[in-house]
Amino acid sequence: MSEPTEPTNSAPTTDQPAGDIAPGGPSKSELKKRAKALEKEKKAAEKAAKMAEQAAAKEAADVDFAKEFYGPLPLHQSQSRPRHARVQISSLSSRDGETVLLRARVHTSRAQGSKMVFLNLRQRTESVQALLMLAPEKVSKQMLKWAAGLPTESIVLVEGAVKKTPEPIKSASVGDVEVHVSKLFLISGVEGRLPFTVEDANRPDSEVDASDSQFNRVLLDTRLNNRVVDLRTQTNQAIFKLQAAIGDLFREILGSNGFIEIHSPKLQGAATESGASVFKVSYFKGSAFLAQSPQLAKQMAIAADFERVYEIGPVFRAEDSNTHRHMTEFMGLDLEMTIEEHYHEVMELLDSLFLSIFRGLREKYKAEIDVVNKQFPCEEFKFREGPEGTLKLTFKEAVDLLVEDGVAREELDDINTENEKRLGRIVRAKYETDYFIIDKFPLALRPFYTMPDPTDPTLSNSYDFFMRGEEILSGAQRIHDPVFLSEKMREKGVDPESMKGYLDGFRMGCAPHGGGGIGLERVLMLYLKLGNIRRASLFPRDPRRLEP
Amino acid sequence: MSEPTEPTNSAPTTDQPAGDIAPGGPSKSELKKRAKALEKEKKAAEKAAKMAEQAAAKEAADVDFAKEFYGPLPLHQSQSRPRHARVQISSLSSRDGETVLLRARVHTSRAQGSKMVFLNLRQRTESVQALLMLAPEKVSKQMLKWAAGLPTESIVLVEGAVKKTPEPIKSASVGDVEVHVSKLFLISGVEGRLPFTVEDANRPDSEVDASDSQFNRVLLDTRLNNRVVDLRTQTNQAIFKLQAAIGDLFREILGSNGFIEIHSPKLQGAATESGASVFKVSYFKGSAFLAQSPQLAKQMAIAADFERVYEIGPVFRAEDSNTHRHMTEFMGLDLEMTIEEHYHEVMELLDSLFLSIFRGLREKYKAEIDVVNKQFPCEEFKFREGPEGTLKLTFKEAVDLLVEDGVAREELDDINTENEKRLGRIVRAKYETDYFIIDKFPLALRPFYTMPDPTDPTLSNSYDFFMRGEEILSGAQRIHDPVFLSEKMREKGVDPESMKGYLDGFRMGCAPHGGGGIGLERVLMLYLKLGNIRRASLFPRDPRRLEP
Repeated sequence: MSEPTEPTNSAPTTDQPAGDIAPGGPSKSELKKRAKALEKEKKAAEKAAKMAEQAAAKEAADVDFAKEFYGPLPLHQSQSRPRHARVQISSLSSRDGETVLLRARVHTSRAQGSKMVFLNLRQRTESVQALLMLAPEKVSKQMLKWAAGLPTESIVLVEGAVKKTPEPIKSASVGDVEVHVSKLFLISGVEGRLPFTVEDANRPDSEVDASDSQFNRVLLDTRLNNRVVDLRTQTNQAIFKLQAAIGDLFREILGSNGFIEIHSPKLQGAATESGASVFKVSYFKGSAFLAQSPQLAKQMAIAADFERVYEIGPVFRAEDSNTHRHMTEFMGLDLEMTIEEHYHEVMELLDSLFLSIFRGLREKYKAEIDVVNKQFPCEEFKFREGPEGTLKLTFKEAVDLLVEDGVAREELDDINTENEKRLGRIVRAKYETDYFIIDKFPLALRPFYTMPDPTDPTLSNSYDFFMRGEEILSGAQRIHDPVFLSEKMREKGVDPESMKGYLDGFRMGCAPHGGGGIGLERVLMLYLKLGNIRRASLFPRDPRRLEP
Repeated sequence: MSEPTEPTNSAPTTDQPAGDIAPGGPSKSELKKRAKALEKEKKAAEKAAKMAEQAAAKEAADVDFAKEFYGPLPLHQSQSRPRHARVQISSLSSRDGETVLLRARVHTSRAQGSKMVFLNLRQRTESVQALLMLAPEKVSKQMLKWAAGLPTESIVLVEGAVKKTPEPIKSASVGDVEVHVSKLFLISGVEGRLPFTVEDANRPDSEVDASDSQFNRVLLDTRLNNRVVDLRTQTNQAIFKLQAAIGDLFREILGSNGFIEIHSPKLQGAATESGASVFKVSYFKGSAFLAQSPQLAKQMAIAADFERVYEIGPVFRAEDSNTHRHMTEFMGLDLEMTIEEHYHEVMELLDSLFLSIFRGLREKYKAEIDVVNKQFPCEEFKFREGPEGTLKLTFKEAVDLLVEDGVAREELDDINTENEKRLGRIVRAKYETDYFIIDKFPLALRPFYTMPDPTDPTLSNSYDFFMRGEEILSGAQRIHDPVFLSEKMREKGVDPESMKGYLDGFRMGCAPHGGGGIGLERVLMLYLKLGNIRRASLFPRDPRRLEP
């Protein structure tokens, strides 16, 4: 663009004295020329005025952050929009020499003598070193002092030049550059004392446990009471990126297999499935109950011809147990599909779903897994990928393995949590896998809607999936015949009349079907070996915890 | 592959008489050859035996459905797995001449004299004509009689030959072929009387209302009481495919804009936001409350550095209102993001999200939209796509439009439902769009966490989005400063101490942020002009309905 020309009151550029008409006067064409020139000048003046106005507006827009080099910004109320782009720390390595603007947390701050302050700036899983050096007209003593006093976890807006470092900075995730700060503003401060530092919260137990350690252990309860600060650790940022990834993979794989997503109501008119573990809700002048799974609704969707459905939603369990793997509210990844010939169609689809999730995590989320492993070291999750396929044991074979290992057969009518873990260890030693399936559970152990085995009435067409010795999925073929289903209900002490809406679906014709329900937080906990399911939930709920 | 060779007791193929050793005996190499040949024969025999076994197994596997040409199949208990692929009706046009196996509903059944039966077979949104003709050794009189008596909505397994039809069959969605049935089995029958036929349930009101009509109207309440049958209509199959599509588009667009999915708990320790419309839950020996939105949790996720989050989950509203657009449980599509300079960053992202959803539906789901339009005819949903962008009015401009149209300014402190619809009509007439935004709502109309306008304290940095004259999204910049937030809480009569966990997040530093919440069923209802939100929910819940 050209420079703005001078406004109209400048001297004319011709030899002709201004306002002085030569004898005979100017010719018509001269007048025309003159008019054109004047018009041009007018336009240029207008343009200049507009540009000046824009510059003034921009100035005004910047005023709140540019009038000083440092200090707290006023309450951010969307006063202006200068459109200065902020950059991500992760992009800094490729910006050597640029002056950038970035918003970040103060992870640590440290004065070096009276002429220098080092800041470690953090954005989610990334961090970079920033430094302020005393410089006339740019970085004053006051500014240095102010910067050194910024509390950890403050959010700042930084302007600075990106510079290559002579040696990599180990304390930063982006260590090949640093930011030489020219302006520094406080966007959001910290009121009072932090319950713990994010640095402490991100430390592996091994460092805290070391004999010469001076680090504070941050207990799980302290973390959960102050979850907002705890969630800022690099580990937690990675854990919840992986949680979202599992959901994405689940949907992607099912979508490409002809499934559609449904949303079923969590408010139920009756305490279904098993009344004991259902929460009661005050519903206007009556009562409702919270669904303990979308089981009935997804089966009704099958009776309604949806063929293949899945749902990702909260499930509620009113069980008063405070174990490492139970919560009163968790995310269920549920699916249900029609069967053409055999319920193994469902079991095999679920198996390929898990294999695709495991592969997807390994291929696309290695960086996040590595971040978590730093705080929670564990052996890589193993699963069989060869032509032999996933290990599938019948319930009987699983029991035999445990008996061989020394467990008394009498106590193995069911496999309890302890024996589940033992089985996981046996299987890992013998088959080198952390992931396997147990098929053909005794009918007595399963809910009323489970289809019995066609040849042995004590068994059922049902399966559980395991990761690192803990159950992560339970599923089965369901009974689709209303007469047989009513019979099985009565055998288990459920009044068929109490579930009329559900039974009606089958009375109006329903295809054979099966499915399963996956606990999202369990998959995440076991894949990463976090040791407690609460670490895999953003704001966990258990019988003793409803906050934050 | 070669044909299986004969088993070992066949004659040897050499001239050498069997067992007869020539003088001098066979040479070493001859013996070796002989041994090789015998080995080969043995292998071939083993192979043949295995194949015979497999064939027998296959035969046995088929026995339950192949021993007769028709009849009810025994209870489907996964007895066998012959791996006979079922086909989809939608694929039949390209299968002329093939013999296929398919599972479908009997949509209608009609005998033509004593030698022919026509079936209309249905799978979700597709249907095809099938016919049985009397044929010796294939289709008996008994079979015909049995087929003619199959109740509507039965699920059958059909084997038949696909044949081109001389003229397109209008009553079927796949009309260029029909299926000549050779075997027909009942998978699942119908017990008792259907509450209504799927054909009746799929009829547009105009057909029922026609003066010479003899059709039954299926009332909404009757539909919802028998939702499993109602959901089988082609219209409903399409509606819920579109519901899933909106969710998919929402996630896809946000995922590509750096958002991650979170899952926040629905069980809360305190009745937050506005206590009046919250459901109370019996929680062990105490109480909990159902979240009326993920508002607080998603803001806490921002305070926890997640930067851009979304959640798709149920929200619960204990409002005793039975309007066409309220439910006690609905699906919220919520998002929250940090702001760099101005809350319009959020508003513009939400706008581009909606435009992408509208375009996505139009481009990828035209077939489903057309199916729904047959039962619910309406003008195509209009939105502005030119460089002028989406229509954005301030609240004041919206009020002025209504006043111009004759509404008294005194009644426009807020815009009620009736005036919202009126405004929708005015805007459509004047700007030719069914989609627009109202910005800058009066602060008094918004919740305590809404950021006031920087220059006019009676206004706020908040917006609503509208489709066909009804609100589908409400959003705003939120207050991130804990002191200012406490002040605003007290002004609205909320005790800051009662929301300590929420406030603590901001006390530990929080970036400026904003977001919005979308009602999934409202978007679906308004896009398709279904007239009642219950039609856009799989199993709707309102103050009077908790079943099915």
